[in-house]
Amino acid sequence: MTPLPTFDDVQSAAARLQGQAHRTPVMRSRTADALLGAELFFKCENFQRMGAFKFRGGFNALSRFTPEQRRRGALAFSSGNHAQAIALAGRLLDIPTAILMPADAPAAKLAATRGYGAEVITFDRFKEDREALARALAEERGMTLIPPFDHPDVIAGQGTAALELFQEVGPLDHFFVCLGGGGLLSGSALAARALAPACKVYGVEPEAGNDVQQSYRAGRRIRIDVPQTIADGAQTQCPGEITFPLIQQNVDDIFTATDAQLVDAMRFYAERMKLIVEPTGCLSLAGAQACGVDLKGSRVGILISGGNVDLKRFAQLVG
Amino acid sequence: MTPLPTFDDVQSAAARLQGQAHRTPVMRSRTADALLGAELFFKCENFQRMGAFKFRGGFNALSRFTPEQRRRGALAFSSGNHAQAIALAGRLLDIPTAILMPADAPAAKLAATRGYGAEVITFDRFKEDREALARALAEERGMTLIPPFDHPDVIAGQGTAALELFQEVGPLDHFFVCLGGGGLLSGSALAARALAPACKVYGVEPEAGNDVQQSYRAGRRIRIDVPQTIADGAQTQCPGEITFPLIQQNVDDIFTATDAQLVDAMRFYAERMKLIVEPTGCLSLAGAQACGVDLKGSRVGILISGGNVDLKRFAQLVG
Repeated sequence: MTPLPTFDDVQSAAARLQGQAHRTPVMRSRTADALLGAELFFKCENFQRMGAFKFRGGFNALSRFTPEQRRRGALAFSSGNHAQAIALAGRLLDIPTAILMPADAPAAKLAATRGYGAEVITFDRFKEDREALARALAEERGMTLIPPFDHPDVIAGQGTAALELFQEVGPLDHFFVCLGGGGLLSGSALAARALAPACKVYGVEPEAGNDVQQSYRAGRRIRIDVPQTIADGAQTQCPGEITFPLIQQNVDDIFTATDAQLVDAMRFYAERMKLIVEPTGCLSLAGAQACGVDLKGSRVGILISGGNVDLKRFAQLVG
Repeated sequence: MTPLPTFDDVQSAAARLQGQAHRTPVMRSRTADALLGAELFFKCENFQRMGAFKFRGGFNALSRFTPEQRRRGALAFSSGNHAQAIALAGRLLDIPTAILMPADAPAAKLAATRGYGAEVITFDRFKEDREALARALAEERGMTLIPPFDHPDVIAGQGTAALELFQEVGPLDHFFVCLGGGGLLSGSALAARALAPACKVYGVEPEAGNDVQQSYRAGRRIRIDVPQTIADGAQTQCPGEITFPLIQQNVDDIFTATDAQLVDAMRFYAERMKLIVEPTGCLSLAGAQACGVDLKGSRVGILISGGNVDLKRFAQLVG
């Protein structure tokens, strides 16, 4: 069994990311504070390189490659932020990368991933099993497969955003984190446990895709159908083998948000904070508003995971 | 004649604004740098209180009131950011404020101005002369009229954004500033002249409303018809009596941007920098891209003036 990453791994990742990842700003909003009766601290990973926290985990994983792994390269399957994270990390570290993407993915996404220097390999998502194809390709080419969340180095890298937040603002009472497969949440929780032991840490996933909430309550990993939600970065079906025990150990509760609540949060960010946040990135704020936890008078961290949303789509959702 | 404000006035304004205005972040963009072949520094006044730089000038003007002026209050005419700036400054300084707004202004804007604590006085913009009405009202009530740009304390306050920029990033080679009536530009130029004497300072106004460009070239204030442009904060007809000589003395050139160029800049900010910028706030970047000045290898300041754009409108423009 893979050993679970620890806070030491998050600190080592932070050292590797120094000068490579942006130290993203923590933003405040008087209006948000007034609405929730609390002090809110927004960690803005929408300002991270390639527009999302995923760069942290991708870069950390690739920077731990052996010389042989570096020569042969990294392979990832993703149509979202993880693809671009691996592609950009590969370019910066001079490691070849290949990304397996659906042939019918938006042309802009294919082009963006190629633009970061990756080889894009397309497949027919109606006929081929992506994960099996990725494993076969990785073996055939001797490339190292980097999964989007269930990998110790990816998790440790993702934890560095929360590390920076606690370093900058000190202890918090509550901390809300966007939740898909749990890479960001489990890494964030490692940082929170070490730096602010009394802080309650929550994951927020789409109501339509609450695989982690169900698993957390059942005490075992539960698989669901591909969820229908605008939070396209959180359409996971099952928590990971590594992320799930970390979440069980370090996370205080899992909440959900509806698509309508995500759109409300997107509007709030745009109108009041002048920020573009992708639907998945709105989970944490929507969860803080909807969870029913009494936040009055407390210090609350909100992790904004990313800002990569097609502008036409953004306009449709908030216009 | 009113004496022209100096850099000393900008510094005094900065001291008054300490702890009241946000010290807004300076943002970078690798993509923008690559596009222009230069190092760009974006001063983000869209993150300023009430969403635009106008708070600086409004607060500075009201904070210089005598006790008698404070008791009787401030009056402004505006349907835009200046109205909310005066309203918010009045609330913070415990000075009553009244804002003259068109009766057919968007309900949201009337409500927002009232929300900041101002009395809103509506008028029929098809029948009544706003400026005459404002002067009559100010006299009748003994209130002090604060014009949107042509006032030394307003200009000095607006200059504090550029002051912060130069303090933070050091000298620049070129500096592009959004231009309506010239309050922001003339204040910014005072800061630039003092802190980076070799820096070229440019104003960028809408192509459809180039009253300052015409005036600058003619060497005298020229009045134009109300310009039709999406840059609703720059629909001025004539530079001010105070702003114009300051611009003549301290500004190196005036450029223009078309509405289409402003929309391109709005898209760039949203897609690549995850920022909501109002059309008027896009003038500086659009001007830097369109002006024809060779910026290669240089350090360039871009002042983003504000982010107050109705979301439906934003969606129409960029969607």
